[in-house]
Amino acid sequence: MAEPATATEAAAPAVPQLKDELDIVIPTIRNLEFLEMWRPFFQPYHLIIVQDGDPSKTIKVPDGFDYELYNRNDINRILGPKASCISFKDSACRCFGYMVSKKKYIFTIDDDCFVAKDPSGKAINALQQHIKNLLSPSTPFFFNTLYDPYREGADFVRGYPFSLREGVPTAVSHGLWLNIPDYDAPTQLVKPLERNTRYVDAVQTIPKGALFPMCGMNLAFDRELIGPAMYFGLMGDGQPIGRYDDMWAGWCTKVICDHLGLGVKTGLPYIYHSKASNPFVNLKKEYKGIFWQEEIIPFFQQAVLPKDCTTVQKCYIELAKQVKDKLSKVDPYFDKLAEAMVTWIAAWDELNPTGAAAALPNGKAK
Amino acid sequence: MAEPATATEAAAPAVPQLKDELDIVIPTIRNLEFLEMWRPFFQPYHLIIVQDGDPSKTIKVPDGFDYELYNRNDINRILGPKASCISFKDSACRCFGYMVSKKKYIFTIDDDCFVAKDPSGKAINALQQHIKNLLSPSTPFFFNTLYDPYREGADFVRGYPFSLREGVPTAVSHGLWLNIPDYDAPTQLVKPLERNTRYVDAVQTIPKGALFPMCGMNLAFDRELIGPAMYFGLMGDGQPIGRYDDMWAGWCTKVICDHLGLGVKTGLPYIYHSKASNPFVNLKKEYKGIFWQEEIIPFFQQAVLPKDCTTVQKCYIELAKQVKDKLSKVDPYFDKLAEAMVTWIAAWDELNPTGAAAALPNGKAK
Repeated sequence: MAEPATATEAAAPAVPQLKDELDIVIPTIRNLEFLEMWRPFFQPYHLIIVQDGDPSKTIKVPDGFDYELYNRNDINRILGPKASCISFKDSACRCFGYMVSKKKYIFTIDDDCFVAKDPSGKAINALQQHIKNLLSPSTPFFFNTLYDPYREGADFVRGYPFSLREGVPTAVSHGLWLNIPDYDAPTQLVKPLERNTRYVDAVQTIPKGALFPMCGMNLAFDRELIGPAMYFGLMGDGQPIGRYDDMWAGWCTKVICDHLGLGVKTGLPYIYHSKASNPFVNLKKEYKGIFWQEEIIPFFQQAVLPKDCTTVQKCYIELAKQVKDKLSKVDPYFDKLAEAMVTWIAAWDELNPTGAAAALPNGKAK
Repeated sequence: MAEPATATEAAAPAVPQLKDELDIVIPTIRNLEFLEMWRPFFQPYHLIIVQDGDPSKTIKVPDGFDYELYNRNDINRILGPKASCISFKDSACRCFGYMVSKKKYIFTIDDDCFVAKDPSGKAINALQQHIKNLLSPSTPFFFNTLYDPYREGADFVRGYPFSLREGVPTAVSHGLWLNIPDYDAPTQLVKPLERNTRYVDAVQTIPKGALFPMCGMNLAFDRELIGPAMYFGLMGDGQPIGRYDDMWAGWCTKVICDHLGLGVKTGLPYIYHSKASNPFVNLKKEYKGIFWQEEIIPFFQQAVLPKDCTTVQKCYIELAKQVKDKLSKVDPYFDKLAEAMVTWIAAWDELNPTGAAAALPNGKAK
C-alpha cells in the first residue's frame, strides 16, 4: 500500500492541475520526509507548513518543494493579540495556514499519511481526486443511489428530479483512509488490530441536514466558498480537550454549507494512514469530548441560521453567538471557544480583505 | 456477469437463512426461466408470484420451486371491491404479494434480474446480503464516513456520538444493479450505451430527512416494521402514469421511517439487470411523472406527521390525507391515488388482522 508514487502515475490528463490556485497545508512537529513519497503529486504545488510546538526547532523539508513555513513566533507576529485563536501544541494550528493562503483551494494532509493504492495496484493521486470532487457539483437535496452522478459511467437514476440535476457548488471534499482508520480512543483500545482494507469506489454528497464526522487528515476545500468556517477551534496546550478540532470545523462547516446551499462530498480519495496514535494519550485528549459531543451534536442539528446570514462570516459569527448562548452551560470552555470564533473571523478578514483572494491568486501573506 | 450460481457459492454460514420468515415476491407477465439462475439461492424460499395482465395466460415456473401464484381473477376474488387499489398491467401489482404474505420479510425482484458477480468473480447471493442488511441496525441520525459501521472490518469513526451507536431497526434494504442502470427515459435516450460496471463495496443508511429514488427491482423490507407503507400506487392500465410505482412507495416509506425512527439502507447487493426497457415506451409512461415529481418531492420533503401517528397504518392514512389536500391541485389523479391509499390500508388490515403476521409465520392468504 505504502510505496512512493512514480511520475508516470502522477500524470493527470483530464483534471485541471490548479497548481496556482491550490495550497497544501501541513501541520507538523517533525521533518517532512513523508513528502518524498508524495513528490510526484505535490511538487508542482506551493506548501504552507504550520510548525506545531517549539518554534526553536528546525523542520527539514525535502529539497525541491516550494514552501513557506510558519512557527509560533510567526503566528504571534502576524496576528498579534488575535493569535490567541490559534491552537498551540495541537495540529489544530493548521487552520492558520488556511488563513494566510491566498489561493482558492486548500488541501490539508497529516504528515503520517502516505500514498495509497487502488485495488488495481495503482498509486492514488489523492490531490487530483480532491480537485475532481471540488470542481464537480454536489447534490445535497436528494440522494442519488448510484453515488456521484457526475462521475464517468454514472448519472442520476430514475426518479431524480430534473430541476436538481445541475447540483450546487462543492465546498468540501472529505477523503478517507486505508490501513489505520480514524477511530476514537475507546474504539482504538477495543480494536487495536483493526485495519481498514475496504476500498469503496464512491464519492457522494452528504445530504442536507445530515451531520458527519469530518476528519482533517485528508481534506480539501474551496477557501472562497467556505474558508472562514474552517476554524479548528481551541485545542491542545492550555485547553481541556484535543482531537475535536476537525470535528468542530466539520459541524460548523456542514451547518453553514446547508444554510448557504453548498455541497460537502465524502469518499474517494483514500490515503494510506501509516500509524495509529497512542490510544491512552488520545483518551486523555478526547474524554471530555466524548461527553460533550452528546450535547454539541444535537445543538448543531437544531441550529438555524437567519436568512440575513448571507456570507460565511455572518453565518460563523451567528454560530459563535449561539454557541455562547447554548453551549456555555455545558462547560465554560465554550464561552472561550465562542470568543475565539469571533477572533478567528476578525483575523481572517484582516488577512483576507474583500476581493483580495481573487485579486492576488499568487500572493503571499508574508 | 450473468451466469448461474453454484450450490457451493450459495452456502451462507454466518447469516441466518430465514427460509420460513421470508417470501420472495415476483411480478411477471412471462415464464419464469430466470429462476433457474437463482435456484441455489432462492429454492429454499417460498415464492409469491403476481401475474400481471391477461389472467388466462399460464405462467410456467421451473420445477422444484415452492410458490403460490395470483392472477387478476385471484386478486379480484380475494379483495373484492378493494381490488381497485391494485394496479393492472403494471408491475406495481407486486404489492399485492406483500399484502398476502404472512412472513416477516419480503424480497422482491424483477424477472429480468440475474445473478451478478463481485469483483473477485464470485456469484453474489443478493438475498443473503439483504438479510444481512435487514438484521443489522441502521444509523439515520448521523453519517458514518466509513459506511455501514456494523460490517466486519468497519466501525463508527472518531466523532460519532456514542449514544447513537446502537442504531435503529432497519426496515428497508435497497439493492443496486450492474449492467443496465435504472435510468429514466430521457437519460436512456441520451445514453443508450451506458452500463453500470462500478461495483461499490458499501452499504449505508440514508440519513434522516433525505429522500431517495427507491427502485423496486431488487428490494427487501421488513413487513412487520414497514409493510403497509409499501403500496406501489395506481399505475398502468387506466392510469395516466407508469414507472413511478416504486418511487411513490419509496417517498412514502422514507417519510414514515423517518417519523417512526426506522432505518433505510442502500448499496449492496448488486443484481445483474439484463435488458434495458424500451425508452420510447418508458417516456410515454413517465412523462407526467417527470413534471409531477417536481411538486411531489417538495411535498414529501415538507411532510410532517403528527405525534399521534404511532403505527405505519396511521402514518399512511395521514399521508393519504395530505396527498389529497396538497397534491390534488397538481392533477385529479392524486385524488384517486389518495383514495386508493386508504383502500390499500383497509385491504391490508383485512388480510393482516393485528398479530396475525406474528402468529402465523407460515400462513397462506389463500
